[in-house]
Amino acid sequence: MSRKSERLYDAIRYVRPIHQMSAQVVTSQLAGRAITMPMRAVLERLVVGGEQTVPQLARALWITRQGVQRIVDDAKELGYVEARSNPGHKRSHLITLTSRGRTAYEAIHAEELDRMDHIAAGVSSADIDACVRVLAHVAAELRAMAGPDDA
Amino acid sequence: MSRKSERLYDAIRYVRPIHQMSAQVVTSQLAGRAITMPMRAVLERLVVGGEQTVPQLARALWITRQGVQRIVDDAKELGYVEARSNPGHKRSHLITLTSRGRTAYEAIHAEELDRMDHIAAGVSSADIDACVRVLAHVAAELRAMAGPDDA
Repeated sequence: MSRKSERLYDAIRYVRPIHQMSAQVVTSQLAGRAITMPMRAVLERLVVGGEQTVPQLARALWITRQGVQRIVDDAKELGYVEARSNPGHKRSHLITLTSRGRTAYEAIHAEELDRMDHIAAGVSSADIDACVRVLAHVAAELRAMAGPDDA
Repeated sequence: MSRKSERLYDAIRYVRPIHQMSAQVVTSQLAGRAITMPMRAVLERLVVGGEQTVPQLARALWITRQGVQRIVDDAKELGYVEARSNPGHKRSHLITLTSRGRTAYEAIHAEELDRMDHIAAGVSSADIDACVRVLAHVAAELRAMAGPDDA
């Protein structure tokens, strides 16, 4: 057992509590708004990755296709997204953000970045960049280990 | 919005997929064994933090006291932990690992570290250390933001 893998394990040990505490913080932030936490995640994927199909969203977010479809249906009702025909695949529509959806996401994300400013003040830029490199690598390797997804 | 907080946000965005993919990998690893994923987490806390009370475990693992109590009861039945009276607090027993519990955890953790060796090969030691510093800081700050826990 190398010290390196032990340290990497130490890093990954923080993932579960961070995931749960973030969820709690975001849930309190969204309380009383139409937008839910998973819908916020779908809108974010559309902002970051552009228009895409439900299976693509499912793969990126590690949620089932059925789960994404439900969220997309709810977001459509709120006028946050639209489905448009996909030139590549007749049966798989492209989900695209409306300007209303972008505005809703941006308002929430601005509040998130305010919280991040506060947290980021306690760590160096170099450490943050290193952390992104490590987590991106871990995510890619785990995705390969976890095997074929359902999307 | 500083670039620093945006980058930190990029890092935290990996937490949810890593959490879910890790859970899937660990669940396949534990399939067919008596030990469950939350029980594995409790045993780990006892290995890392030594004997402690149910409320202390709940705080550290960000699980409710009732949830931890159920896991501890199951682990007791398997002979992995024991409760002993707490000199400090009459009503809150100290949960302590048995040698059988330590052996069970260590066998699982050895397999986890084998997987980590493979993943760690793709990143530098300095990056891993930086990642631990960042995630430890984020966890501490979120814990403060998430407010009083139920434990």
